[in-house]
Amino acid sequence: MPIEAITWSPSGAVRVVDQRGLPEVARHRDLDSVDAVVEAIRTMQVRGAPLIGIAAAMGLVAGLRDARRAPRAEFLTALDGAARRLGATRPTAVNLRWALDRMTGVAASTAGDGTAVWERLRTEASAIWDEDREMCRRIGEAGLPLLGAGAKVLTHCNAGALATGGIGTALAPVYLAHEAGMPIHVFVDETRPVLQGARLTAWELSEAGIACTVIADGTAASLMRAARIDVVLVGADRIAANGDFANKIGTYGLAVLARHHGVPFYCCAPTSTIDPDVPEGDAIPIEQRSPDEVRVLGGRRIAPTAAAVLNPAFDVTPARYVTGYLTDRGLVRPPFQPRGGSR
Amino acid sequence: MPIEAITWSPSGAVRVVDQRGLPEVARHRDLDSVDAVVEAIRTMQVRGAPLIGIAAAMGLVAGLRDARRAPRAEFLTALDGAARRLGATRPTAVNLRWALDRMTGVAASTAGDGTAVWERLRTEASAIWDEDREMCRRIGEAGLPLLGAGAKVLTHCNAGALATGGIGTALAPVYLAHEAGMPIHVFVDETRPVLQGARLTAWELSEAGIACTVIADGTAASLMRAARIDVVLVGADRIAANGDFANKIGTYGLAVLARHHGVPFYCCAPTSTIDPDVPEGDAIPIEQRSPDEVRVLGGRRIAPTAAAVLNPAFDVTPARYVTGYLTDRGLVRPPFQPRGGSR
Repeated sequence: MPIEAITWSPSGAVRVVDQRGLPEVARHRDLDSVDAVVEAIRTMQVRGAPLIGIAAAMGLVAGLRDARRAPRAEFLTALDGAARRLGATRPTAVNLRWALDRMTGVAASTAGDGTAVWERLRTEASAIWDEDREMCRRIGEAGLPLLGAGAKVLTHCNAGALATGGIGTALAPVYLAHEAGMPIHVFVDETRPVLQGARLTAWELSEAGIACTVIADGTAASLMRAARIDVVLVGADRIAANGDFANKIGTYGLAVLARHHGVPFYCCAPTSTIDPDVPEGDAIPIEQRSPDEVRVLGGRRIAPTAAAVLNPAFDVTPARYVTGYLTDRGLVRPPFQPRGGSR
Repeated sequence: MPIEAITWSPSGAVRVVDQRGLPEVARHRDLDSVDAVVEAIRTMQVRGAPLIGIAAAMGLVAGLRDARRAPRAEFLTALDGAARRLGATRPTAVNLRWALDRMTGVAASTAGDGTAVWERLRTEASAIWDEDREMCRRIGEAGLPLLGAGAKVLTHCNAGALATGGIGTALAPVYLAHEAGMPIHVFVDETRPVLQGARLTAWELSEAGIACTVIADGTAASLMRAARIDVVLVGADRIAANGDFANKIGTYGLAVLARHHGVPFYCCAPTSTIDPDVPEGDAIPIEQRSPDEVRVLGGRRIAPTAAAVLNPAFDVTPARYVTGYLTDRGLVRPPFQPRGGSR
């Protein structure tokens, strides 16, 4: 059974696994204010494009619980402020903006006082979560036929249960294969600097009883050369209309290596990750994170102070390197149309 | 001024910088027994293919200082035993075997008692060191014309002063450019799992006043795509007769990426790194190191115990990806002939 990354607490707070403590400590935290959710997303207690969207939507509900007794206009003003603060936490993942737009849109079109709007928002946040869980499963179903018995999958970062409200995106086909009793092995890039692969992906796969092997990021190329990888499955933080996509730094290099070695390379994401307003990948804003993520490890300084550090959290993989996009609408190909008519 | 990685102590011990403490602490250690040198190489207090060879040669001298009063046959037996133990520390770098063979060969052909042979060995070890320093400079001279003013160099692992008896191999052209007053910038792959790039290369460049930027290994591909890299310079632990070479894990991936982006890729090494007895790269033994190098960081477990780890220290880059080989004999191309007639 895949772990559950997010849920409602009995008191209506957003209950999350604090991912900073993994794999050593799986500690839950109950986030009951907008500030707490903002902080949790910013510091990557909660991360993964789909999960950030769900957490933000649920955070609006938990954080505006008290504000719901205010008059409608005042409540909507509080909602807008909260949505703006949540939206500013991480610039690259589009699911965040998508979830917040959906919540504020629903609020605007719901009649009644603060309480009525808030109740509607609670239903909508749960719907976003439910839909994500369903989308994960559909992504898995789209990807399952690509995996033969004994398939050796390479993945990068964490696009699993810890990145979504369900069984993940890139890992969804893996979970379904395991569920079906099919032997499978996952090679996990440790994914420096934040080590989401080693800390999160290897942990959730191990918890689910799925065999995996952690490698330093620089090892993937020689595994491909030795024909030890059958398929590369990665997630996405934002997919442009032309199919270019942003994902964790290192994804682009993997895509080039996969192409070079004839290994199929799939981008796995719910359609909420597609941003048809962005025509191509190089228009996606790339978050630059603190140099200390690279420079300090386990409290120890691993690079001299005099040296500069470049720490982009994401890179862009052009569509031409992508074998296909596994989504909740099946295996799709760009160009992607505006939402609703998307395909 | 580049730092000095090895020297004789006043008492005749092998004085090294203990590289495990860098970049935080630059501590010297005096190794006065074969056991101490074996331990220093095995635990990577001393690393880098050329430096390991020099340290082993000097270690025979320091470690057999007392044995020199023994009769000739007894001394030679002790020498053989010591050489075997030193030779077993690291399987991939050929410079180690080369230096040890050279020392035992010289001993066998030197007449006289233990003291006479030991004195000859001391001269030979110093000669190996002197020659390495000279070879580094020649590698630098071969590479300098490839660097324009403001050149942006990408390097992996540490193939600098800390890996040799002189100004390094891959970094030698960089040091000569800096010496000539030419502006230059080095992007340094942090080089997981042991972080020789962040800890050692960035440190020695910073000490020498050369501008550098540390990146996670997964960042190199997007820098190449953004045309921010002019040339890739890496070292080698062993070069096969056909030009395939073993170097730090991650080198092969860089070579593929460089080829894909049209970035020149040079392998920089003294000719003692060429092993004409090995016809091609896949015949080079690849050292597998402890999973804990990947699994534990700064005392903290970063991957779950249930997950396997694969930790090859090196990979093999086929010759077809190499733009050229910068050696003490200039810019050369394979095939490489047996030593003496090599070119």
